[in-house]
Amino acid sequence: MFLVEVMRGGEMTKEITSLQNPKLKDAIKLKERSAREESGLFIIEGYREIKRAVDAGIHLQTLFFCPELFLGVNEPDLLKQITAAGSELISCSERVFTKLSYRDRPDGLVAIAIQMKYQLRDLIARLADKKTPFLVIAESIEKPGNLGSILRSADAAGADGVIVCDRCTDIYNPNVVRASVGTLFTLPVVEASSAETLIWLRSKKIKVVAATPSAQEEFTDANLQGPIAIVVGTEQIGLSELWMKAADKQVRIPMQGVADSLNVATAATLLLYEVLRQRKAPLHASTFLR
Amino acid sequence: MFLVEVMRGGEMTKEITSLQNPKLKDAIKLKERSAREESGLFIIEGYREIKRAVDAGIHLQTLFFCPELFLGVNEPDLLKQITAAGSELISCSERVFTKLSYRDRPDGLVAIAIQMKYQLRDLIARLADKKTPFLVIAESIEKPGNLGSILRSADAAGADGVIVCDRCTDIYNPNVVRASVGTLFTLPVVEASSAETLIWLRSKKIKVVAATPSAQEEFTDANLQGPIAIVVGTEQIGLSELWMKAADKQVRIPMQGVADSLNVATAATLLLYEVLRQRKAPLHASTFLR
Repeated sequence: MFLVEVMRGGEMTKEITSLQNPKLKDAIKLKERSAREESGLFIIEGYREIKRAVDAGIHLQTLFFCPELFLGVNEPDLLKQITAAGSELISCSERVFTKLSYRDRPDGLVAIAIQMKYQLRDLIARLADKKTPFLVIAESIEKPGNLGSILRSADAAGADGVIVCDRCTDIYNPNVVRASVGTLFTLPVVEASSAETLIWLRSKKIKVVAATPSAQEEFTDANLQGPIAIVVGTEQIGLSELWMKAADKQVRIPMQGVADSLNVATAATLLLYEVLRQRKAPLHASTFLR
Repeated sequence: MFLVEVMRGGEMTKEITSLQNPKLKDAIKLKERSAREESGLFIIEGYREIKRAVDAGIHLQTLFFCPELFLGVNEPDLLKQITAAGSELISCSERVFTKLSYRDRPDGLVAIAIQMKYQLRDLIARLADKKTPFLVIAESIEKPGNLGSILRSADAAGADGVIVCDRCTDIYNPNVVRASVGTLFTLPVVEASSAETLIWLRSKKIKVVAATPSAQEEFTDANLQGPIAIVVGTEQIGLSELWMKAADKQVRIPMQGVADSLNVATAATLLLYEVLRQRKAPLHASTFLR
């Protein structure tokens, strides 16, 4: 009933059929970083991602939807939830929606959301009740898909948060949102400089473990228990001198074949799950990094 | 000197400046699967990938190159090596080359190669001297990037080969080649049906370990020693009933956050490195799967 009313373009909703509509044009502009930074807004596409954002309390400014493209049966409930939260709903023709979507197979839902902009101090609240903080530092990752995958793995391995240092891609890039499958909204993700992050980690007594091919110790032999921040660097050149020097421990992932590296998100996942494994079944009687 | 001669379009090389050139058009067609299947050829782009192919004995039919786009200093040596192997060299203008390239930042090298077409029986020779075979089965993977990443991780973790069952994407897709960073050429990669693969694994006494979220046992608790084939399934629905039933053991990757799955290539990597870890430092005194 609700959906029918929405689709009719009743009181509660607007309808767009023209590609020249200014709201549509503004939304499309958010695919560009400059427009995201200027407006403080970003795009979330897809049922799963939007649902996770709304459930996590992210405020949506606008929801564009196209019922002809809906894939499931839960969309009307989500539309209700979003309407109740005070967001604007805009119904689109398929032609208009396709212009806005960045997916191969759009599912009829694109939201414009307000950027969260967490700071390092916001992480403190989250970490307050954690005896052994578990963080991921992603330094200057270039590809949005890699950064999103790191977030997805951080969520899966039970990390408490991710700090994106000296960013190359911004965390609000649509492909970060997509590759994170919405974990961007449930995991505290902070953008900060490497310098301030290092000072902050030191003040919290969180040890820094850097992944680098030049390390002696393999990651599964290293003691990764205790308060820890796993640091991974750019796809092309790895970690900066700053992080390499600051690391309390350097570890490497063994490479048995012809290739000399793994994808950065894959490497991060191996390290994060090794932390999880050691937390579940401690191998080392010693405390961390005596 | 050699490069200068090649660039001049001397005896040893041809030159293309027209987008209508039939050789160029045939090469571009190889981006489509139908053309790859009809011709038995495929495209390899990039210095690193082509070098790995040539070193691995893959026969190149043609090399298209554009010296203006070269990034390094080793390209002339590679051109010499390819010429010596009897392949045709074709120099291209930047405009022509860009049409052929599928990369954002082309490095001036695209090869047309003859498909390897390994069979299960070819794996036997490779496994003959292995006391404990270590294989990866990738069932019906849809995204070329994921399949390529699985190959890259299989190489890194020291697997003996990969069997691509009931393929969705073919292993000669340019994005498989790219994501594999050339490990497609150094690792035995076989395409086969699930049914014949299962019979073959049984005959070799190789145990099948399936990764599935519904398993009881976590992958790091399971004994993954002994002759093993790690099986992963499609991005959307996971492993087929056939493989789930055939598995000697089912294991799951713990998920601590809101997301209910990892990327299939990431999941495969975790399992492969767990096999490697257990081979290096056996935790279980027992033999595999009593």
